[in-house]
Amino acid sequence: MTNFEVREYDAAGRLGELDVPRAGVTVSTPTILPVVNPHVQTIDPAALEAEFGAEILITNSYILHGSDQLREPALSEGLHDLLGFSGAIMTDSGSFQLAEYGDIDVTTEEILAFQQEIGSDIGTPVDIPTPPDVERERAERERETTQERLERAAAMDTGEMLVSAPVQGSTYPDLRERAAREAKTTGLDVFPLGAVVPLMNEYRYADLADVVAACKRGLGETGPVHLFGAGHPMMFAMAAALGCDLFDSAAYALYARDDRYLTVRGTELLADLEQFPCQCPVCTEHTPAELRKLDEDTREDLLARHNLHVTYGEIRTVRQAIRAGNLLELVDSRARGHPTMLDGYRTLLDHAEQLERTDRVSKDAFFYASTESAHRPEVVRHHERLDRFDIDAETVLLTEGGSNDRYDETWGVLPPFGPYPRELAETYPLTAEVPDRTDRAAYEAAADGVARLVALHPDTSFTLVHDDWPETALSRVPERVRLQDLHARE
Amino acid sequence: MTNFEVREYDAAGRLGELDVPRAGVTVSTPTILPVVNPHVQTIDPAALEAEFGAEILITNSYILHGSDQLREPALSEGLHDLLGFSGAIMTDSGSFQLAEYGDIDVTTEEILAFQQEIGSDIGTPVDIPTPPDVERERAERERETTQERLERAAAMDTGEMLVSAPVQGSTYPDLRERAAREAKTTGLDVFPLGAVVPLMNEYRYADLADVVAACKRGLGETGPVHLFGAGHPMMFAMAAALGCDLFDSAAYALYARDDRYLTVRGTELLADLEQFPCQCPVCTEHTPAELRKLDEDTREDLLARHNLHVTYGEIRTVRQAIRAGNLLELVDSRARGHPTMLDGYRTLLDHAEQLERTDRVSKDAFFYASTESAHRPEVVRHHERLDRFDIDAETVLLTEGGSNDRYDETWGVLPPFGPYPRELAETYPLTAEVPDRTDRAAYEAAADGVARLVALHPDTSFTLVHDDWPETALSRVPERVRLQDLHARE
Repeated sequence: MTNFEVREYDAAGRLGELDVPRAGVTVSTPTILPVVNPHVQTIDPAALEAEFGAEILITNSYILHGSDQLREPALSEGLHDLLGFSGAIMTDSGSFQLAEYGDIDVTTEEILAFQQEIGSDIGTPVDIPTPPDVERERAERERETTQERLERAAAMDTGEMLVSAPVQGSTYPDLRERAAREAKTTGLDVFPLGAVVPLMNEYRYADLADVVAACKRGLGETGPVHLFGAGHPMMFAMAAALGCDLFDSAAYALYARDDRYLTVRGTELLADLEQFPCQCPVCTEHTPAELRKLDEDTREDLLARHNLHVTYGEIRTVRQAIRAGNLLELVDSRARGHPTMLDGYRTLLDHAEQLERTDRVSKDAFFYASTESAHRPEVVRHHERLDRFDIDAETVLLTEGGSNDRYDETWGVLPPFGPYPRELAETYPLTAEVPDRTDRAAYEAAADGVARLVALHPDTSFTLVHDDWPETALSRVPERVRLQDLHARE
Repeated sequence: MTNFEVREYDAAGRLGELDVPRAGVTVSTPTILPVVNPHVQTIDPAALEAEFGAEILITNSYILHGSDQLREPALSEGLHDLLGFSGAIMTDSGSFQLAEYGDIDVTTEEILAFQQEIGSDIGTPVDIPTPPDVERERAERERETTQERLERAAAMDTGEMLVSAPVQGSTYPDLRERAAREAKTTGLDVFPLGAVVPLMNEYRYADLADVVAACKRGLGETGPVHLFGAGHPMMFAMAAALGCDLFDSAAYALYARDDRYLTVRGTELLADLEQFPCQCPVCTEHTPAELRKLDEDTREDLLARHNLHVTYGEIRTVRQAIRAGNLLELVDSRARGHPTMLDGYRTLLDHAEQLERTDRVSKDAFFYASTESAHRPEVVRHHERLDRFDIDAETVLLTEGGSNDRYDETWGVLPPFGPYPRELAETYPLTAEVPDRTDRAAYEAAADGVARLVALHPDTSFTLVHDDWPETALSRVPERVRLQDLHARE
């Protein structure tokens, strides 16, 4: 069964469509599932749908199950009528409560049956959210328990309801990868990556990138991937580039309650704002001083609306970037919001080879936007594919300048890619826009490309004409390559 | 006479208040002056005021002067009634037409008198907009002509009307600086930096940064600086960080006419958009597909409104960043929009010493957000101020680790700043947030700080305990410093 289709890739980022049969809707991804608390609705679900275009939301079936007021209405009216929402509704199982309080009073079978009874469109088993940094043995044991529950869930008849298969494994990449691979074998439909909230709360974006990359290795390209509890718009681009399709967030509401204001660069306190750094309807119609004077409920409502506008705005920005093929340029920009985000971006690029596998072969133009750009998947791919070209010349000139008849063959050289056959000059990514003030990282990546090409052709004699490369780059070029400075020749 | 007050600095960026006596308003800066074409008003000035909060706009007095339909109404009703705008109105003089068509039929005296008659709040003489890259002789000659006109303008009685003093000089930094210094001596009120549009049209942001920095050296902190014709929000942060206070733009309207859509990361064609990467009222209420189906006038109106929303949104973002003291972090993020913007940012940082002079001494936290951060004014200042500390110890330990009693004195070391007296550890900028994955640029800047400190104390013996610094950094440390690797010691 395939209920998820990818329309377009950029790095590991995907524009997808998730078919939710029970709701009769197709959800465009990446997207965010606003968390709706069944008891307290900061923004009511009808408004989420009408004003923000929400196609899907998430609520907690465990709270409904345990509520004297809401359990019966949920069963008799069904979730959609109870909440007043016609899109897709995903339900969480109580795993969060299990992690917080150590114990809950339902089994996977009970809660999935209840979710089905109340009309949930995507149900969730009771997995064990193993926190970061626990002992390996505990992470292994809990992963096994989670997998058993997923298998029991898969064996149940849940009708048209999709069922999610959370992936655990703490901060052990190999356990995450294995958990993902086994979750995939269950045939379940949606893959939440669990227990990542503690990483995000501590700004551990580098660890988050490693965890997501590990899970994705296990999952391959199966099904939509849900970054459970990720609701801050500052990290949507990065998570999407790693291959996450769904986010969920109570942040818009929780933060509003504390007078906190979301931006794609971080979180601000309303008290610290003199101007709203935003053009959403709330921020164009009010000033921070005006908002501070309002009564608490109105202020909370307006802040929650701002938080949702910036959240959905970033989701659209991510989608448009995938469409345009410049998602990594967006990640690059967002990485400047906090030094730990830069750590996350640098770690994401450690996985460039993995991201390269789904990255599309041609896009509009590669923008060299930072020293980090030298490590992008396109550079990795260019180096990997150097083995596709035959060279039967005895002498080859690799040059940033013009051809020279004294050599049997001339290749171009472009930092950060390195050497390329001249007939490819007008193809992606060699049509790159690079700054005039190039940096060492670009020259060094180009030198690595030279080294790779030279290694592939042990019997060929190479000359590299470079335009004032720094020593750190030249030292990466194999010794047998003759070096000339472009301007020294003139 | 001082009609401009700076409330707060960040780098050379300023939160200011421009008192416009004739309009009876005080304009908060940085801000944008929407260009209103007297003949065709895409968004009418009353809406600019009511919906977008425009406190000031700019229109062209030369067009009014030469218009059979508008000249008389402008004279009889006055500009404010003619346009329906109660804020401040600045008028251009026809210099743009002079640059475009080579000749105009008014003198500085005539057009300034006309501007005053029609009730302009800020008038402009007829300067000569010298394009980039012209021969130096021409740039010199035209600069002199412009200066003569400024002096004639300054000699006129223009009542309460403020008068601007455009600064020319093509792409010659020394001419720009001199033009600025002489413009300042006229005592005129507002300083437009002229003929920069060709630089922006060609994405020459590095040259733009050099031109602005040169003009600012000549102007000092006198009066508001207007980046004439700068209307793309992608460069507001950078220009503001260099010390520009006013921008003006017809881009919102001109681009809308061509179905072009502004973002802080560049310009998009409506035809290429599947999602609006924005949360403004237009973009939350419509999809690109919907907009494409509308009739041309409605589409143009909505695109112009989006363009204005994103423009004013970015102005507020810049203001809030100056307030919060993180303007350079914003520039860093915006620099990732295009490789030429990165060139601009790197060039801006060439002027770090100049920017440092007005930068405030304490802010919330320094974020190390990119390799470029190693060259920020705070790093330059830290190095410059190392001469403020006396050392009478014979042996000094500079260390990324803990103290050691074997040395007379112990200093801390923090990339990118370098050595610091330990009692300053909790002060700005040493409270910096730096990524775990630090880069060579940070270590090298720290090494430069070590070199500077060591040069100041020729009789002291220094030991540097570093945490695995790369060779490129260690090679910048003077030879007489004993080196130890932090982990090699353990």
